[in-house]
Amino acid sequence: MKEIVLVSLQREANPVLVCGLPGSGYVGKLAADHLISVFKLKKIVEYASDSFPPVVNVRADGTAEEMKAELFFGQAARGRSLFVFTADAQPTTAEGEYELSDAVVSRAKEYGVKKVYALAAYITGTFSPSPKVYGSATSKEMASSISAMGVTLMKDGGISGMNGLLIGVAALRGLEGACLLGETSGFVVDAGASKSVLETLSNAIGLPIDTSKLKEKAEETQKVISQLQAMSEQSQETSPQNRRETRPGYIG
Amino acid sequence: MKEIVLVSLQREANPVLVCGLPGSGYVGKLAADHLISVFKLKKIVEYASDSFPPVVNVRADGTAEEMKAELFFGQAARGRSLFVFTADAQPTTAEGEYELSDAVVSRAKEYGVKKVYALAAYITGTFSPSPKVYGSATSKEMASSISAMGVTLMKDGGISGMNGLLIGVAALRGLEGACLLGETSGFVVDAGASKSVLETLSNAIGLPIDTSKLKEKAEETQKVISQLQAMSEQSQETSPQNRRETRPGYIG
Amino acid sequence: MKEIVLVSLQREANPVLVCGLPGSGYVGKLAADHLISVFKLKKIVEYASDSFPPVVNVRADGTAEEMKAELFFGQAARGRSLFVFTADAQPTTAEGEYELSDAVVSRAKEYGVKKVYALAAYITGTFSPSPKVYGSATSKEMASSISAMGVTLMKDGGISGMNGLLIGVAALRGLEGACLLGETSGFVVDAGASKSVLETLSNAIGLPIDTSKLKEKAEETQKVISQLQAMSEQSQETSPQNRRETRPGYIG
Amino acid sequence: MKEIVLVSLQREANPVLVCGLPGSGYVGKLAADHLISVFKLKKIVEYASDSFPPVVNVRADGTAEEMKAELFFGQAARGRSLFVFTADAQPTTAEGEYELSDAVVSRAKEYGVKKVYALAAYITGTFSPSPKVYGSATSKEMASSISAMGVTLMKDGGISGMNGLLIGVAALRGLEGACLLGETSGFVVDAGASKSVLETLSNAIGLPIDTSKLKEKAEETQKVISQLQAMSEQSQETSPQNRRETRPGYIG
Repeated sequence: MKEIVLVSLQREANPVLVCGLPGSGYVGKLAADHLISVFKLKKIVEYASDSFPPVVNVRADGTAEEMKAELFFGQAARGRSLFVFTADAQPTTAEGEYELSDAVVSRAKEYGVKKVYALAAYITGTFSPSPKVYGSATSKEMASSISAMGVTLMKDGGISGMNGLLIGVAALRGLEGACLLGETSGFVVDAGASKSVLETLSNAIGLPIDTSKLKEKAEETQKVISQLQAMSEQSQETSPQNRRETRPGYIG
Repeated sequence: MKEIVLVSLQREANPVLVCGLPGSGYVGKLAADHLISVFKLKKIVEYASDSFPPVVNVRADGTAEEMKAELFFGQAARGRSLFVFTADAQPTTAEGEYELSDAVVSRAKEYGVKKVYALAAYITGTFSPSPKVYGSATSKEMASSISAMGVTLMKDGGISGMNGLLIGVAALRGLEGACLLGETSGFVVDAGASKSVLETLSNAIGLPIDTSKLKEKAEETQKVISQLQAMSEQSQETSPQNRRETRPGYIG
Repeated sequence: MKEIVLVSLQREANPVLVCGLPGSGYVGKLAADHLISVFKLKKIVEYASDSFPPVVNVRADGTAEEMKAELFFGQAARGRSLFVFTADAQPTTAEGEYELSDAVVSRAKEYGVKKVYALAAYITGTFSPSPKVYGSATSKEMASSISAMGVTLMKDGGISGMNGLLIGVAALRGLEGACLLGETSGFVVDAGASKSVLETLSNAIGLPIDTSKLKEKAEETQKVISQLQAMSEQSQETSPQNRRETRPGYIG
Repeated sequence: MKEIVLVSLQREANPVLVCGLPGSGYVGKLAADHLISVFKLKKIVEYASDSFPPVVNVRADGTAEEMKAELFFGQAARGRSLFVFTADAQPTTAEGEYELSDAVVSRAKEYGVKKVYALAAYITGTFSPSPKVYGSATSKEMASSISAMGVTLMKDGGISGMNGLLIGVAALRGLEGACLLGETSGFVVDAGASKSVLETLSNAIGLPIDTSKLKEKAEETQKVISQLQAMSEQSQETSPQNRRETRPGYIG
């Protein structure tokens, strides 16, 4: 892994780290990209890792770009320093996931971060018009706190991949962390779940977040969902086991 | 891998290392947790490894915790120093298993340990009301000794995973080691098998171990087993090949 | 990985690095071997990697040879320095691919290379008498430039394996890179696709390349293709879904 | 990987390294063990590797032993120094195979070895009463030389695993190497194939090898083969595609 520091910072006052990586429904990635766009955050660190998938991405203009992870930073409203971590992909090995989680959490700690939020998806296999937010935290205080904001605390199980590791590593390094998981079917890119997650985050860190653009995307998603549901209802008449193939509770 | 020493020790007099990791029937893990609880052992070392499954565990209170392995220590009865090693999971790669085995055995050797016991399961695929204990040891003396205590010596095959590696690495480092494997169906968490294994261990290291709480758990297990057997007998009338799917002799 | 420098060079004037590795249709490998032969390039660096497949190749004369990658060099026409990179196989792990890509790009940069071309296949699953060339580049300028030469720019997707990584790593190291991907069915070793790719390369780097020997091979390939098509037409009468099994757009 | 030197040697006069590892038919392993026994060779180096399968072997007497590779040495007849390399298993990763191959070849080179022979199996899927020996070598001279002794030179393909790597790495280090592959069905432990391979080796290195004990084992094997053939002929009457499942030419 290689960490390329583009902008060096001092210890920030009152900062928070929010992480959103590609995964099921793109819930976390959409939310992270939205924060970067809304608060006009600047990229301060790039991470190259030889455990990323061995692929270059080709963009619409025909240009190709290597896989990377990125840490963004900016002063959000109300004197709140905001770090956002995202990536083109998750590493392909457990070792790579641990290494990258450790690098970004260590960097954030150096800049004064005490709380880490990982945004991701909670897959139910069914479509919900008002997605709930599930969650877990590394301390009882933080678990109580997100619970008081309407987050349904998970009762057992595990949170796999970087989303879980980021808060696990945060705890190992003496920070606190919480996962906020937006309920999603897992079948489509789900801006509605991202919006729900960001509303909870807004509440948790006391920072107003304009989600109007996500709302538009969510309405588009809703149309796709309605079409899928109509198709699904038709196909279920002939093939009743479709629903069984969903994996409720899977977290990605 | 990272070894975090919480409490530093001197060379102990007459110490023994007992290892019990998650595996089939949770036989070894239940036994290790029981020893920690009964003898009020203190955690002295934590191990983080990037070859653990990339998951954080969520507990019943909604809190999440990173995967780790732990070494506990305490003065058990009769002036016997007891080290117990356990973990949330086994590493996912052979390299990770070797590395962790080596770290804990080296640490134990430094503190004066000469004998290592790995507790685990011997899967038969059938339910036994009084589980036997199978075993193997790294020296002829130790093999004879556990045989004299009623352990059925394995005649060939292999013991896979950390349970085997721990005693293999012990031998490489000049210590002796034995695996004690409790007979279990492999279908349920089996406190009865853990109890059998601890009774043999008690005999082997000359340390009385109160297994009354495990006995209660074992009786609960026995009820589940009885129900499963009743169901199994019914299903076998219609599907006679069920029993063939069991894997006798598999060690986990 | 081990880099064995056979001939040490100074910084070359106006050099270019062309890479062609084994993959679908052998398009890139055939093209690279052709360049080495036509311009009488000399081997200057060998790479051994423990992530190559654990195999030795046996040749027609009964001799066996270990897997390796090789960098060749020579003065091509018009004062153009030409580096060609090829290998017996691609590494089997992402880590190995990143490491080897990094080694050869770093070496080429040291010798003054500013542009890297990776030659490979663009699989369509159908046979084309005049294979098109698809492509992508790491800068808008280079993408425009290859587009102006008749290359069809890819619009999205990814380029996997060393072919993509080589230009991704080139960009990371401050160089520019382009992939030139010859349209091929993916069913046969395709000298025609290699010829198309080399004609585009010739145009791009302003270096005449004699492809007459490849043309002969391509004509042999064409005969095989005609036979396959005849057989395919017969079998399609009885099995119409054959064509669906092709994977259009796959890049190897 | 860890190399434990038990006995340190000087540069030997006229030494040869013979390697036989577990694989199909146990051809190479049986042959190596036979050489160690017949020439009363002494173990001089042990290799532990964390890429061996994570298993301890249990022997008939109930004792368990960690996986290892071993280098043996002794003065064979006619003033010939003989090194024999064998192991309990082959490493599970390409990286592990390369590392171990490199360690033993480097060690042998230090002690004056110039030629390396790897003994293994050539799988045909059918039973042969007088198994042929196939082979390949890293130099034309050595290929001609083994061909003159009745070895059928392979014409193409690859030799996978440590058997191939050992001679590939030998060539990388400036030594010569040959694989001698005993024809075997691949279905049973085949002492007859080991005997054929050792007779060729005897010829190649000019060292008489008493194979009478292997002959006894081979005759036992032959009885098993005869039974299997009888059973196979019966079953082929009802299931004619049995023979198609064999994999001719596979090398293990």
